[in-house]
Amino acid sequence: MLEETLQTSRFLRALRRESVDCTPVWIMRQAGRYLPEYRQVRAQAGDFMSLCKNPELACEVTLQPLRRFALDASILFSDILTIPDAMGLGLYFTEGEGPKFEKPLRSSKAIEQLPSLDITAQLNYVFEAVRLIRKNLPKHIPLIGFSGSPWTLATYMVEGGSSKNFTLIKRMLYAEPESLHQLLEKLAEAVTRYLIEQVNAGVQALMIFDTWGGVLSTQAYETFSLHYMKKIVSRLKQVCPKTPVILFTKQASHWLSMMADTGCDALGVDWTVTMAYAREQTQGKVALQGNMDPAILFTNPEVIRQEVKAILESYGDHPGHIFNLGHGIQPQTPIENVEAFINAVHEFSEK
Amino acid sequence: MLEETLQTSRFLRALRRESVDCTPVWIMRQAGRYLPEYRQVRAQAGDFMSLCKNPELACEVTLQPLRRFALDASILFSDILTIPDAMGLGLYFTEGEGPKFEKPLRSSKAIEQLPSLDITAQLNYVFEAVRLIRKNLPKHIPLIGFSGSPWTLATYMVEGGSSKNFTLIKRMLYAEPESLHQLLEKLAEAVTRYLIEQVNAGVQALMIFDTWGGVLSTQAYETFSLHYMKKIVSRLKQVCPKTPVILFTKQASHWLSMMADTGCDALGVDWTVTMAYAREQTQGKVALQGNMDPAILFTNPEVIRQEVKAILESYGDHPGHIFNLGHGIQPQTPIENVEAFINAVHEFSEK
Repeated sequence: MLEETLQTSRFLRALRRESVDCTPVWIMRQAGRYLPEYRQVRAQAGDFMSLCKNPELACEVTLQPLRRFALDASILFSDILTIPDAMGLGLYFTEGEGPKFEKPLRSSKAIEQLPSLDITAQLNYVFEAVRLIRKNLPKHIPLIGFSGSPWTLATYMVEGGSSKNFTLIKRMLYAEPESLHQLLEKLAEAVTRYLIEQVNAGVQALMIFDTWGGVLSTQAYETFSLHYMKKIVSRLKQVCPKTPVILFTKQASHWLSMMADTGCDALGVDWTVTMAYAREQTQGKVALQGNMDPAILFTNPEVIRQEVKAILESYGDHPGHIFNLGHGIQPQTPIENVEAFINAVHEFSEK
Repeated sequence: MLEETLQTSRFLRALRRESVDCTPVWIMRQAGRYLPEYRQVRAQAGDFMSLCKNPELACEVTLQPLRRFALDASILFSDILTIPDAMGLGLYFTEGEGPKFEKPLRSSKAIEQLPSLDITAQLNYVFEAVRLIRKNLPKHIPLIGFSGSPWTLATYMVEGGSSKNFTLIKRMLYAEPESLHQLLEKLAEAVTRYLIEQVNAGVQALMIFDTWGGVLSTQAYETFSLHYMKKIVSRLKQVCPKTPVILFTKQASHWLSMMADTGCDALGVDWTVTMAYAREQTQGKVALQGNMDPAILFTNPEVIRQEVKAILESYGDHPGHIFNLGHGIQPQTPIENVEAFINAVHEFSEK
């Protein structure tokens, strides 16, 4: 009964490219710092990873945006880097500098010696959070699980954190491709099992965040990022064929057509292309999720309504649109503008 | 006579899409920190802007890479932000954080009150450097002049420096577009006159760097960046029709076709697309400059030679290719790899 209510939700119907009463909407990083109630729980938890590793608090912050806004989906509160953290690289966060690893991978030997994970045990805090969230979520709201892509995880693991030029991992890619493939194989295997366990714990859809695929050449992207995402998708389609998978590579406007051929159900689209262009590139093979520039949420409800309307019109009267921002919501975003955004999506798309 | 030797150079022939004996090559930021002799002059000059504003030293560092490598073009050593600096915003550089302005533009009033420039007088240090460089350059080596694009200049002027999310200028773009247009008009006018004066002082080609056009939506890019570059190009084509103009927007793989319709002579292409794709998008309307990932220069001569060959093959046997990196060379790049890169371009492209 729960399953049936969920499967007929706008969000899952749109992912299957079925007709909907209005366009579903959710927001990347919707559980986040722009919400005062999030900042409060975060302060209580201490650092960011302590919040991720505490299922009760992770559940609480996941639910927070749903209490304020008419969102059509919920996304597990977690980090994209839980897998490398479980592999013993020592994830930590520094204010303003993003994630870092205490022990980055700097040699082929370090890659060979990476431990294989006992996913169920080591990442149990994630699955526990999923179970708690599913139990507490409104019955009609689907829950999205996620992971970073193998390539994106590898960039952090090799560079030791965020990077501007990705010199270390690109040197490996071009000069020692076998080592990098070995790392990506291990990560693809771990990501696959991690996502399957999220489904087992109760998520209804999966999203793979390839934050840094866009820094590659087309050929390197195909070989070192897309290839492994495709592999993950095809395993997921065997094990949990009913769970839709959304792929998102930031700055991949010129690769949408290739991405649509991976067997995934939907693509995340950033704001650098129009939805009409994204549809043309993907030929109706997948649903599309996006794509308002998060910066527009710093203007005012009037401008936001115009832009929402323009994006809906650009997508046109076709099935398969999930409205979202083109990237995560920013910490300083005014809350009243978020509300105007979500309401505008529903209002302007109502059939 | 000088003019004739220059006009038959590989670089200018390739920009005109004429046949060449081998593919010309230069490197964005070829005068830079990867050269010990540059670091020495820089230390002597003090800060970065003091180096830019000293014509003798700017000339010296412009010539340095030509003494080491078989480069086919030279580029004026300067900064993209000389115009806003001359407008009184107070440009300064902080180690590791890039350029900053003491007095960023934060209101429509500040934009209205921007002084109009006496380009010839206020930026005389640039034209003086051009004259000195032209006098001292080998007779067959063309000199490239440049400026930042109006949009790119505006991002620094409004944000006060580099930015991650460009929230301030995007808020202006979406909520107060008239103010931003007013700023961009002023900048387009100043950039046009600045580039014309560079031609008068002795440069043979011009390049417009649109470092941040890629952060915009397609429509915003057309309206707030491309539109103004097009305007500049058409003025340049009236005043100095023989001087080729190269446009470069970083991360514009999906806009190459639009960019090729501006009337410019060439487009800079980053490494996120293949040269074959860039040719297909631009239909032979323009020459193409690029596009090796600068990170590849951190590998070794063997890998570099393979990648150079692959890029030449991707471009194919057509006129109009100027080899370059897809972005500026990085400060830590090993010099022997730069040499291997330049030699490989000439070797593999020889007719």
